[in-house]
Amino acid sequence: MSPKQLTINLLEELVHTAELNQEGKTANYIPELENVNQDLTAIAVQPLGESSLSYSNYPLHPITLQSTAKMIPLIGLLEEFGNEQLFEWVKVEPSGDDFASITRLEQFGPKPSNPMLNAGAITLCSHIPGKGEQQFRWLEHWVQKLFNQRLSINPSVFASEKRTGSRNRSLAYLLESRHNLGTDVSETLDLYFALCSYEAMLEQMLFLPALLANGGIVPDSGERILSTETCKITLAIMATCGLYDETGTHMVKTGMPAKSGVSGYTIAVVPGKAGIVVLSPRVNTKGNSIRGEIMLEGLSKAMNWHFALPY
Amino acid sequence: MSPKQLTINLLEELVHTAELNQEGKTANYIPELENVNQDLTAIAVQPLGESSLSYSNYPLHPITLQSTAKMIPLIGLLEEFGNEQLFEWVKVEPSGDDFASITRLEQFGPKPSNPMLNAGAITLCSHIPGKGEQQFRWLEHWVQKLFNQRLSINPSVFASEKRTGSRNRSLAYLLESRHNLGTDVSETLDLYFALCSYEAMLEQMLFLPALLANGGIVPDSGERILSTETCKITLAIMATCGLYDETGTHMVKTGMPAKSGVSGYTIAVVPGKAGIVVLSPRVNTKGNSIRGEIMLEGLSKAMNWHFALPY
Amino acid sequence: MSPKQLTINLLEELVHTAELNQEGKTANYIPELENVNQDLTAIAVQPLGESSLSYSNYPLHPITLQSTAKMIPLIGLLEEFGNEQLFEWVKVEPSGDDFASITRLEQFGPKPSNPMLNAGAITLCSHIPGKGEQQFRWLEHWVQKLFNQRLSINPSVFASEKRTGSRNRSLAYLLESRHNLGTDVSETLDLYFALCSYEAMLEQMLFLPALLANGGIVPDSGERILSTETCKITLAIMATCGLYDETGTHMVKTGMPAKSGVSGYTIAVVPGKAGIVVLSPRVNTKGNSIRGEIMLEGLSKAMNWHFALPY
Amino acid sequence: MSPKQLTINLLEELVHTAELNQEGKTANYIPELENVNQDLTAIAVQPLGESSLSYSNYPLHPITLQSTAKMIPLIGLLEEFGNEQLFEWVKVEPSGDDFASITRLEQFGPKPSNPMLNAGAITLCSHIPGKGEQQFRWLEHWVQKLFNQRLSINPSVFASEKRTGSRNRSLAYLLESRHNLGTDVSETLDLYFALCSYEAMLEQMLFLPALLANGGIVPDSGERILSTETCKITLAIMATCGLYDETGTHMVKTGMPAKSGVSGYTIAVVPGKAGIVVLSPRVNTKGNSIRGEIMLEGLSKAMNWHFALPY
Repeated sequence: MSPKQLTINLLEELVHTAELNQEGKTANYIPELENVNQDLTAIAVQPLGESSLSYSNYPLHPITLQSTAKMIPLIGLLEEFGNEQLFEWVKVEPSGDDFASITRLEQFGPKPSNPMLNAGAITLCSHIPGKGEQQFRWLEHWVQKLFNQRLSINPSVFASEKRTGSRNRSLAYLLESRHNLGTDVSETLDLYFALCSYEAMLEQMLFLPALLANGGIVPDSGERILSTETCKITLAIMATCGLYDETGTHMVKTGMPAKSGVSGYTIAVVPGKAGIVVLSPRVNTKGNSIRGEIMLEGLSKAMNWHFALPY
Repeated sequence: MSPKQLTINLLEELVHTAELNQEGKTANYIPELENVNQDLTAIAVQPLGESSLSYSNYPLHPITLQSTAKMIPLIGLLEEFGNEQLFEWVKVEPSGDDFASITRLEQFGPKPSNPMLNAGAITLCSHIPGKGEQQFRWLEHWVQKLFNQRLSINPSVFASEKRTGSRNRSLAYLLESRHNLGTDVSETLDLYFALCSYEAMLEQMLFLPALLANGGIVPDSGERILSTETCKITLAIMATCGLYDETGTHMVKTGMPAKSGVSGYTIAVVPGKAGIVVLSPRVNTKGNSIRGEIMLEGLSKAMNWHFALPY
Repeated sequence: MSPKQLTINLLEELVHTAELNQEGKTANYIPELENVNQDLTAIAVQPLGESSLSYSNYPLHPITLQSTAKMIPLIGLLEEFGNEQLFEWVKVEPSGDDFASITRLEQFGPKPSNPMLNAGAITLCSHIPGKGEQQFRWLEHWVQKLFNQRLSINPSVFASEKRTGSRNRSLAYLLESRHNLGTDVSETLDLYFALCSYEAMLEQMLFLPALLANGGIVPDSGERILSTETCKITLAIMATCGLYDETGTHMVKTGMPAKSGVSGYTIAVVPGKAGIVVLSPRVNTKGNSIRGEIMLEGLSKAMNWHFALPY
Repeated sequence: MSPKQLTINLLEELVHTAELNQEGKTANYIPELENVNQDLTAIAVQPLGESSLSYSNYPLHPITLQSTAKMIPLIGLLEEFGNEQLFEWVKVEPSGDDFASITRLEQFGPKPSNPMLNAGAITLCSHIPGKGEQQFRWLEHWVQKLFNQRLSINPSVFASEKRTGSRNRSLAYLLESRHNLGTDVSETLDLYFALCSYEAMLEQMLFLPALLANGGIVPDSGERILSTETCKITLAIMATCGLYDETGTHMVKTGMPAKSGVSGYTIAVVPGKAGIVVLSPRVNTKGNSIRGEIMLEGLSKAMNWHFALPY
């Protein structure tokens, strides 16, 4: 079957097919995540060398990044410190456990399994260089670079994360007790909670996956922002660990390295071809967007993007 | 950096670089695996649309497939029963545990985590259709298809697996106690031990990864042997589960879906570009070939084959 | 509150109180265990220096020992090989896991946690001295000693255990793969399945706990059968591991070292005071007799036998 | 063998025998625990109805209670709220894991396994009635009752626990995330760290085990301080969970319900006969005093106190 054309009609069709699924619901582990229109279903695609396209069934508004933001410290630290240093801080193996597993950390530690789990991302936040304000400026700097613009932090989500984040506190103190952290627990968690609280519009999410698809070079300008090495490592981590303990299923269905977040965003990369973002806040018990996966699977099939197989 | 030419010189260089590493040793869990020249180091590449190339530092001889043979029931059953049925028998998630983990099976079961672990492959063997001889003939049929020729079973390895396979027996009885098996334990294990005992020459290993790289169509003849769907699923499983709990590290270094075996073979796929086999019997404690990984990493770098990134 | 008199009336009252509880059901992991009158509720007590008393709500018949038989290899091997040798074979720590846990064995092994779990008892059976017939004779010898008479093996329970014991086979092969067994798997399991299949009448079960209560000396005759050392170790293991992962709850309620079996028998010891056996085949998901525990708790309260506290 | 007389000579002999063992060292998880004479070896015994005896190889000074203090909230809450309420807060099963295991809590929770593990004791501290000062006064009240005098809190140990208690913070936040705590994390930990920091002289430790041995009645005065019910439950928990994952071994060797602490104190109870305290700061990797166990085993043998067997 030869691939379809990438058109608005295709995206609309993908959204409408996904809408038929009524499973899942907005994450409720922090109250603010529930205050989102749970039927919002949207997709945006940036094919390399062409204009981006997007479709949404409802008007869009900014939504927090949650775990998709785990890409930021991963990429920033890879660029600044290199992969050898990074792999001193975290491993890069899928864990088979859920995103907030403490067992995994205790039994297979002391290093967190990978940077896409909470324990790994918290550890990486603690190794952002500098102290206090400097670390926040580092985050701002990398957000600017990877999203090509500033993003704001949603203050009520941030406050809510801080107020309710007992499980992440538990992870952070366990990490501290094993000397994994480069910054003290309280400041590390402030960084981590801020990271999760960045918010972006759908199309703002598209720059990063397109940049990765293009090997670190901005598709429009030809400017190299990330090294090829960083892109490769990042894609490999997304391919093996990007959707927690559903990554295998995701790769079987889509063949696209991706990273999900409980707010409903999932970003996906077709190396050499396109960057993608899907959005739907109905998540399953694994914390992955159900309709998001349906749209990615449909798009992968329609475009023959699964591992870019030739036939 | 533009990619190098794929030449015999490049392969020779990769072998010689790998030879510098003296770590690891031949697997000894069955005595016959130790009776191999542990310094043998070889690579063969089948670029799509070109002639295959290979280089070995020592004369070659047939070597058993071990876990690389787990591809056979996976692909055969996918083709004959479809993925929905297959995923009734096994899950497709990386487990974070070693290849023979019983804990993983007990705590996260009843289904085995994925078809690349012993528990998953044993389960799949039990669902090969027919009884006794028919099941063996099914295996022969699929070996013929996926290797484009008959392979023989090494009788002393088979006998050795049978004699020493207590851990696999333990897995099989646990599976039976949970009603996961379609055939009784003893016959299932005969199939599984036979599967591991197929042996092939280096170049005989090349047909399968080239077939997968070409989306299921034989590169030479243009004949479709496997559906695109089967190829996609197989590649996704290799990408997330192919090297046990080193799959993440492997993907970070090479960006190539692969499957390893304790005998020293690893097969790898660059979708749309090439099939690869590397061989070196010095394996690490995870059961993966150390020099094999070094060669794959070097080849991926030299050819820019890591996720086929454009720059 | 001063203790009551031990009378038939008290036992009758305990049985009738226990009968009010309708929870639990006969174990069904082997078919023969279901073929028992599940409302049978009985108790027998042998106070040291007095006549034994018993009461049953239905006519009694022989019932298999199941896990209460794990006492036999434990005591026999302690007597013949001493505790140092025994603790080379098994540990003596409560495991927090269920009786057939494989996880526990894999992660905390190689030695089984304690002789009251299946893995521990299977290991001990494999170290019964001799070969084949000799090992069975050893069992017969120790049954004769500890029950003061021969017991017969229920052939249909034995056959059923053999036919359905996949999980125990799984444990045994895992033990073999770690070199824990002194006899091969198949013969070891024959011993273990035979052990579980001994059957006894209620009052036949009373000799052993009375012997332990009396420090190894037969209450009637004054003959020493077991060393004090063996009795102490046995009581300590019963107190910490006798009811799987309900041992803590059992000790809180009764203060009596005990050993349960899924057939419904539980034997209990009040050191220096009495041996007890209760019987009711309604077991809970942990494999412990529900009414049996109610009777033991009631008896312990009535007689002030909880840790033999003075007031 | 008839039991020996309980004399100062016997105690001296036990101390000198224990001194021959040079294994273990002072706990170092908080710096202050290391500042103790690690060769200090002492024992005190309070036989019911007789004068207490003690012997020490070095001059004594106050030492912190550490985990032996876990008895205080357990007993106080049992007395005030009863066992049904207590078992709503914690389970009473040995866990097979070490004292600070988070895995156990995550996988077998939400309730902590038992009150003798850190997770269980932290949970119980959070349910001490009142707020802030009232909770501390509750502790003072129960210390007064169970030790028959005020004890002081060692301020540098308390400060050190607070400064270094990351693992306990991790446990507490995990408990909070599962809604196990009755007080917020920070105040709960203040109570817990204070609890561990009480310090006492050797003979001050003797009142509590003697009280338990005597069923809750003060041996001297005949005044009932604890209910029989509370004593029974406490003894059962000590017998099954008192020495973490060495409780089985301890019971095999001594037959005495006991509770250890990393500072080197272990208190033990012979129901109806005696209360005992041993002290030696050389602890093993499980956190139990090595010489303490040697002395208890020797005393149990000498006095025939193992489960109070008659012969």
